[in-house]
Amino acid sequence: MKNKIFYPYFLIICIGLVSLTSCETKKPAIPRDLAKQQLIPKPVNVNATGSSFEINGNTSIQYQSDEVQPIATYLAEILRPATGFEIPVKVMDSKPSSDHIFLTLTDSITSNEGYELITKENGIVIKANKPAGLFYGVQTLRQLLPASIEKGTKVSDTLLVATGIITDSPSYGYRGVMLDVSRHFFGVDDVKRVIDLLSIYKMNRLHLHLSDDQGWRIEIKSWPNLTKHGGSSEVGGGEGGFYTQEQYKDIVKYAQDRFITIVPEIDMPGHTNAALASYPELNCNGKAPELYHGTNVGFSTLCIDKEITYKFIDDVFGELAAMTPGEYIHIGGDESHVTPLKDFIPFINRAQKIVEKHGKKVIGWDEIAHAELLPNTVVQYWSKGENAIKGIGQGAKVLMSPATKAYLDMQYDSITPIGLHWAAYIEVDEAYNWDLATFEEGISKENIIGIDAPLWTETVQTMDDIEYLVFPRVLGLAEIGWTPTSQRNWNEYKVRLGNHKDRLEALDINYYPSTRVPWKSVSVQNDSIIKK
Amino acid sequence: MKNKIFYPYFLIICIGLVSLTSCETKKPAIPRDLAKQQLIPKPVNVNATGSSFEINGNTSIQYQSDEVQPIATYLAEILRPATGFEIPVKVMDSKPSSDHIFLTLTDSITSNEGYELITKENGIVIKANKPAGLFYGVQTLRQLLPASIEKGTKVSDTLLVATGIITDSPSYGYRGVMLDVSRHFFGVDDVKRVIDLLSIYKMNRLHLHLSDDQGWRIEIKSWPNLTKHGGSSEVGGGEGGFYTQEQYKDIVKYAQDRFITIVPEIDMPGHTNAALASYPELNCNGKAPELYHGTNVGFSTLCIDKEITYKFIDDVFGELAAMTPGEYIHIGGDESHVTPLKDFIPFINRAQKIVEKHGKKVIGWDEIAHAELLPNTVVQYWSKGENAIKGIGQGAKVLMSPATKAYLDMQYDSITPIGLHWAAYIEVDEAYNWDLATFEEGISKENIIGIDAPLWTETVQTMDDIEYLVFPRVLGLAEIGWTPTSQRNWNEYKVRLGNHKDRLEALDINYYPSTRVPWKSVSVQNDSIIKK
Repeated sequence: MKNKIFYPYFLIICIGLVSLTSCETKKPAIPRDLAKQQLIPKPVNVNATGSSFEINGNTSIQYQSDEVQPIATYLAEILRPATGFEIPVKVMDSKPSSDHIFLTLTDSITSNEGYELITKENGIVIKANKPAGLFYGVQTLRQLLPASIEKGTKVSDTLLVATGIITDSPSYGYRGVMLDVSRHFFGVDDVKRVIDLLSIYKMNRLHLHLSDDQGWRIEIKSWPNLTKHGGSSEVGGGEGGFYTQEQYKDIVKYAQDRFITIVPEIDMPGHTNAALASYPELNCNGKAPELYHGTNVGFSTLCIDKEITYKFIDDVFGELAAMTPGEYIHIGGDESHVTPLKDFIPFINRAQKIVEKHGKKVIGWDEIAHAELLPNTVVQYWSKGENAIKGIGQGAKVLMSPATKAYLDMQYDSITPIGLHWAAYIEVDEAYNWDLATFEEGISKENIIGIDAPLWTETVQTMDDIEYLVFPRVLGLAEIGWTPTSQRNWNEYKVRLGNHKDRLEALDINYYPSTRVPWKSVSVQNDSIIKK
Repeated sequence: MKNKIFYPYFLIICIGLVSLTSCETKKPAIPRDLAKQQLIPKPVNVNATGSSFEINGNTSIQYQSDEVQPIATYLAEILRPATGFEIPVKVMDSKPSSDHIFLTLTDSITSNEGYELITKENGIVIKANKPAGLFYGVQTLRQLLPASIEKGTKVSDTLLVATGIITDSPSYGYRGVMLDVSRHFFGVDDVKRVIDLLSIYKMNRLHLHLSDDQGWRIEIKSWPNLTKHGGSSEVGGGEGGFYTQEQYKDIVKYAQDRFITIVPEIDMPGHTNAALASYPELNCNGKAPELYHGTNVGFSTLCIDKEITYKFIDDVFGELAAMTPGEYIHIGGDESHVTPLKDFIPFINRAQKIVEKHGKKVIGWDEIAHAELLPNTVVQYWSKGENAIKGIGQGAKVLMSPATKAYLDMQYDSITPIGLHWAAYIEVDEAYNWDLATFEEGISKENIIGIDAPLWTETVQTMDDIEYLVFPRVLGLAEIGWTPTSQRNWNEYKVRLGNHKDRLEALDINYYPSTRVPWKSVSVQNDSIIKK
């Protein structure tokens, strides 16, 4: 049926070019399985048809409305170095199914982040309801191209894309990673690289843990000593560091362009030694403690009874909210072991109201469920299911980060050179083999907004360290957040993960080469296809 | 668990009011089944908890952001006449779970039109991702209130709402009715009443069939004779009528306020006698035919070979697009029996491009799949599955309106006083007992944008006629578009439909009292609850 319909178009194109010799009626075949075995997270529906579309010197990227233009350019910037061609980006000016890649928004796709990627021998159309969906369609298209495109150098004159229809949308709306930049500080370029890599796997949140006992990392103009003094330390006694507001806004914008929302966390009332060391008036005894370079937790607290404490958090959240386009600010709330519950509850109640006053909603670690939650407050489950369930009883939603599965700082096994293991050793299969909606009795899909995978950095000092703990586990965690549980299983996933070997290497990622994954170089197959 | 958490709040409220006598620790019970048996379309998830929230003189409606204010006001305007109280509408200024109804937007709900309605003894919270979701949450809340509120007069000093959590989102994004205002004309007030009634059942599209052989109903300033002459006729020789552009914009705005998008249709190249009668130059022979008052179809066509035809449709679609906030314009394309296929195909190809030039996407009846569809064109399946499947082969989405199930002008049975039966007799159970995604082999859920139920008006002359054919079938069609098929069955639905008797009557709807429905007055039960 399809051939009948498209054959006449094809003839018209050939005649149009006055070059009948270049008219191939047969395009190179791409095995259907190969097309499917490249994709992480697994799309909801892949119907590969076994043929190919050729990206070549005639290919342009066309978009239908201005808001789509940046995504078209993003795609062009992937294709240009790989092909050496210009790959022009322009408003739709020709029939889309004629050698072009066409990006369009339509209400006929209903999911906020869903998309449809239709590849035929004579063109590609990506449709979505929102720009985010188009961006994810582009990421899927990217994974259908040879891994070597990720090197940023010329691969071939032509790139082939497997034909078929992919219909896709995520199971959960919040799919993120948390990076602790307090225990060890990481600069703007490192954060941008994390953003780039997460976006490939359709993650949409980066939670930055911006303050802790060991360091305060975000400039607050009304309380300058927070970074001047409190930003000068880190675990092990290194020099620390912080983001100026300009740098932070740059990160936020860079992430936004990749459809990632930064979720900033200021942890309180505990985990506050860096702030307490910077401003003595925040301490109940009026004395500033020393900066802290160790890895203990639970020893610090803001002074709950002093009014200056609330002036402080009002100023901090006010400046932070002004730089935050996302809806959430994270107030921490974990491990406040030296704050009695009778103080903790009114503090969290008041902190929530201050955040909402600044137009943002609250996320907090699961301990905050002891307080009276506002209707939009989200409880982040990390340690205790009973806390999360208590939050649900108050009408709250839950963000899933159980330490035994989602903590990226846990070692893979007992010989992993960095990382901790207080919660568990988490091999690659163990990070994959669980489900958000069945992990804890009493927390079901309708209660859950998604997954956040924290990387605490007591032992993590370099970008290589980050990559070693995050990859490849984060690919599986991304799939847990995106793909319906009924369509996931390790034995099938591990093949797709193994096929990402060349891609991870082309991206120069220092991943952990788990022996449980059948790593496989599929570039030979791709090369045999692309070098006709 | 819930009681433990909320009990302390309740005490605090009581103390705050300094009126301990008004503090009931037990609220009147509402049977869990009763709460569920009021709701059409059936929500995805209803967890009734058996108690009640009381709307009374202390109740206010509070919203968190300005864009929500109109929905809060809409709800207040339902509650005010029913209670006689002021029901103030204001920005959130108090703890939401304290006698108030709170409306808030949050990304923690991911569906575009989904919502969560949380009713506890001490307050109601409706959460949604978009204002549309809040509006649907309000409609669900409306159905939890006694049917008599629909009368617009005082019901009681207090209204009780069943407690529980409802989590809901639609299966399909397009849920609509088509009203043919060409065969018989219906004025602005009639259209607004249709909009009001559809919105109660969470429908979100009203497709207006604005032109046909018998009459042209929308003012086009550059072609004024279309309405001056072409608007002056209708079936049977009545006086016809048309909407001025001001009136049309008023309809569009009224619909928008109820989250209904107007989809305007100008049927072509056939079904155009009214236009051809108004402008002789649109006829191939240059002669204007007479106005037509009959009910035959398939005899008229625009002149495909004349350039003036394309100037005409460019002007018409240009003026129409300027008044259309929705993404679609419908170009008809059905039953063009006197337009040879060799003419029909290039005409539809060119008409699509003209619509897209004006920034809109195309819907057309299934015959348009013979042409070369643009990537965003939607095929409306009414008669031939093979046409729709041909469209899918071209990458198009399908809007489902199979005449044997979804045509609202089909008679219920052989003695129904109005309506036709060329496709089928469609009793209330037959209109309900089918599924969009399995109706036709080769058309699956991922191909379908939703349902459109057409009411053609050859035999329909009054608002009473409209109501008789549309109700109660449209409730079931709304549920087909909203509720997952796995959660629908006639034996359970008919009980809910029967329980809508009082509501349909309070709304003064001239519905068809099918003997297949166990109509039941549930107002006595409600009254026994509300008159404590």
